[in-house]
Amino acid sequence: MTTDPAEHTENDALALERVVFFSDAVIAIAITLLVIGLVVPSIAHANDATFIQLLTDLAPRYLAFAFSFAVIALYWLAHHRMFRYIVHWDGGLLRLNLVFLFFVVQIPLLSSILGSYANLASATALYAFGLCIMGLSSSGLWIYAVRRKLVRQGIDPSVVRFFTYRSLAAPAIFAISIPIAFVSVSLAQLSWLAITVVTAIFHSPRGAADSG
Amino acid sequence: MTTDPAEHTENDALALERVVFFSDAVIAIAITLLVIGLVVPSIAHANDATFIQLLTDLAPRYLAFAFSFAVIALYWLAHHRMFRYIVHWDGGLLRLNLVFLFFVVQIPLLSSILGSYANLASATALYAFGLCIMGLSSSGLWIYAVRRKLVRQGIDPSVVRFFTYRSLAAPAIFAISIPIAFVSVSLAQLSWLAITVVTAIFHSPRGAADSG
Amino acid sequence: MTTDPAEHTENDALALERVVFFSDAVIAIAITLLVIGLVVPSIAHANDATFIQLLTDLAPRYLAFAFSFAVIALYWLAHHRMFRYIVHWDGGLLRLNLVFLFFVVQIPLLSSILGSYANLASATALYAFGLCIMGLSSSGLWIYAVRRKLVRQGIDPSVVRFFTYRSLAAPAIFAISIPIAFVSVSLAQLSWLAITVVTAIFHSPRGAADSG
Amino acid sequence: MTTDPAEHTENDALALERVVFFSDAVIAIAITLLVIGLVVPSIAHANDATFIQLLTDLAPRYLAFAFSFAVIALYWLAHHRMFRYIVHWDGGLLRLNLVFLFFVVQIPLLSSILGSYANLASATALYAFGLCIMGLSSSGLWIYAVRRKLVRQGIDPSVVRFFTYRSLAAPAIFAISIPIAFVSVSLAQLSWLAITVVTAIFHSPRGAADSG
Repeated sequence: MTTDPAEHTENDALALERVVFFSDAVIAIAITLLVIGLVVPSIAHANDATFIQLLTDLAPRYLAFAFSFAVIALYWLAHHRMFRYIVHWDGGLLRLNLVFLFFVVQIPLLSSILGSYANLASATALYAFGLCIMGLSSSGLWIYAVRRKLVRQGIDPSVVRFFTYRSLAAPAIFAISIPIAFVSVSLAQLSWLAITVVTAIFHSPRGAADSG
Repeated sequence: MTTDPAEHTENDALALERVVFFSDAVIAIAITLLVIGLVVPSIAHANDATFIQLLTDLAPRYLAFAFSFAVIALYWLAHHRMFRYIVHWDGGLLRLNLVFLFFVVQIPLLSSILGSYANLASATALYAFGLCIMGLSSSGLWIYAVRRKLVRQGIDPSVVRFFTYRSLAAPAIFAISIPIAFVSVSLAQLSWLAITVVTAIFHSPRGAADSG
Repeated sequence: MTTDPAEHTENDALALERVVFFSDAVIAIAITLLVIGLVVPSIAHANDATFIQLLTDLAPRYLAFAFSFAVIALYWLAHHRMFRYIVHWDGGLLRLNLVFLFFVVQIPLLSSILGSYANLASATALYAFGLCIMGLSSSGLWIYAVRRKLVRQGIDPSVVRFFTYRSLAAPAIFAISIPIAFVSVSLAQLSWLAITVVTAIFHSPRGAADSG
Repeated sequence: MTTDPAEHTENDALALERVVFFSDAVIAIAITLLVIGLVVPSIAHANDATFIQLLTDLAPRYLAFAFSFAVIALYWLAHHRMFRYIVHWDGGLLRLNLVFLFFVVQIPLLSSILGSYANLASATALYAFGLCIMGLSSSGLWIYAVRRKLVRQGIDPSVVRFFTYRSLAAPAIFAISIPIAFVSVSLAQLSWLAITVVTAIFHSPRGAADSG
């Protein structure tokens, strides 16, 4: 976390590219590993009826997979969007990015837990908690980059604020769903769908530079 | 999905490269995870005869692996080809690409299901359905890019049409094979081989720019 | 496989980079998945003695992992070396590269089989067969690139020949070890170590451009 | 390992980029695979109490995962930092880098072993041994690059020395913890936390170019 100005020079672009690349690779692996939680047991002498029963049993796990895929995809889009504005870096940004990735790689585990225990308040709350923290770490990355002036010069302050607020919407919804889970598990899980609604509402303030 | 013209500028190249990179990573992981479905059980005191028996039992799974590898490889080639012409992007393209990847990451699961239940009409139909949808999402990506003028200017309209028709050939074959599966599972699976034939026939209209 | 000259233009570099990138990703995943075959069972109330016994039981699998890692690493080096000379591409090169990757992704399976059945002639022969074919597909890639003039102009013909011969050395050793396996499994496995010797001997003809 | 000067030319940048890319991919996969060792068994008719019990049982594995993530992340930062200075390459550097990656890919295995047998001196010593060797291979990479003059010209010798010493700190701590493990397992594991302290102390000599 030095403030050495020499750091923000020619090598910035290449070093930043490697950070983005490493993040993309970790996110890509995490999103693909989600499917590992989905296994159809191999049963001898099965017929179409037993097979369809196996698929039906898979339904809650499939929903957990599909929702988790959507969440990781949204966060990849958000990361993609943020790093279109971040043009410098320092050690703190690298570390915060690794903290974000630390939470990303746990999503396949959380997703598999939710798939197995979708009817439990505790498992639902744990999933919401994990995704809330991941979202907060993503917001923290953005806020840090803005505060340390690592973003492109001349960026419209309203765009910065918009990104900040929007990045806090999903963590807020996940946080609110935690107490809800102990009242109604289904309601908590349904409330997560509000994230897509909010993302749509928050879209493109005055036709501005949000294209992801 | 803004139409902000500022979006289609200098940053396009880098941002688009990241999209292509992320897609490549997901496809690479999915194609490599196919092999995870292939496991030779570890049996104590085995001899050459028991080992060869184990390999023989693996045959349907190996065929499912090899065919699925070929399908993902073909779609990687198609993606590679499309993105030689796509030079701009918008939020819609990113989202459609993520939808395509959503279906790609499910292929290891579908492949493992087909390997376990290759003799069932329902499993065969499910595999065909999954690959049909993946193919349609790939076609949708191309059609969207063309309609939104995200492709390179001056591209020959006959090349555009050719790519569109060709991209619909594999989904059509998979769709047709679904009802066939309930008549004859083997016939449905054999019909998939038509994809390679069709790909060969559809190759390079008048020696044009199709090199993938 | 068109011969359209327009193909060998500005876009070559980017498209070729994507091919190299995709190959690197697949090879990286395959080399990392090797370790998945190594599992130490989790036993309740274990002490140091039981733990060390578990590790000892792991020894043949560890050797298979380490050798397979070395082989994939050598082929990555060879791929890296070849693509320093390959500057153009066509559909045939892409397809041959995918064939090569098809054999690469199977190495984790072959390695796990060898680890489980290291004392069987059939398993040893299967491993040698798989790695022989992978090596031949790598040689085929190089020979194709040279014949189709996809390599850099002005490349010394002796370098081309050297690369070709060297790339055939490992497949030859694996091929020879197949009949040996049915006489002595250990001798066949030991003969594979000759690959490192041969690689060393074949190193850098007259101090030429071979630096991998 | 030729000393051919032609090797250190225009192609250096691209070839070096591919080395860095391949390393990033392997490290990204290894860091993401860590989570595969964490599995919550799927139990029928579980309630919140049984679920929380399952999570509690997971605690030692989670700690092993989190610590291993931190170690791999630190080594990725170190690799990132080193390759900001390394601008040339030769066959030896490629091979040493592969040796480093050979130890990196084993961390998911070591982490899973530590998670299962966290109370055993032998398992603790094995983990420390594996991470000590990985650290030494990383130091070796740096020392080799400096000796062979593969680093950027004009680099401050004090920065070189600083990097060398710092890279040896973590291996030294892991090495010292091996005998400690046979006295007290907990003490050995606690001693690993010293790595973060040492990394902080060793940070940025006189505000110099260490930004990772």
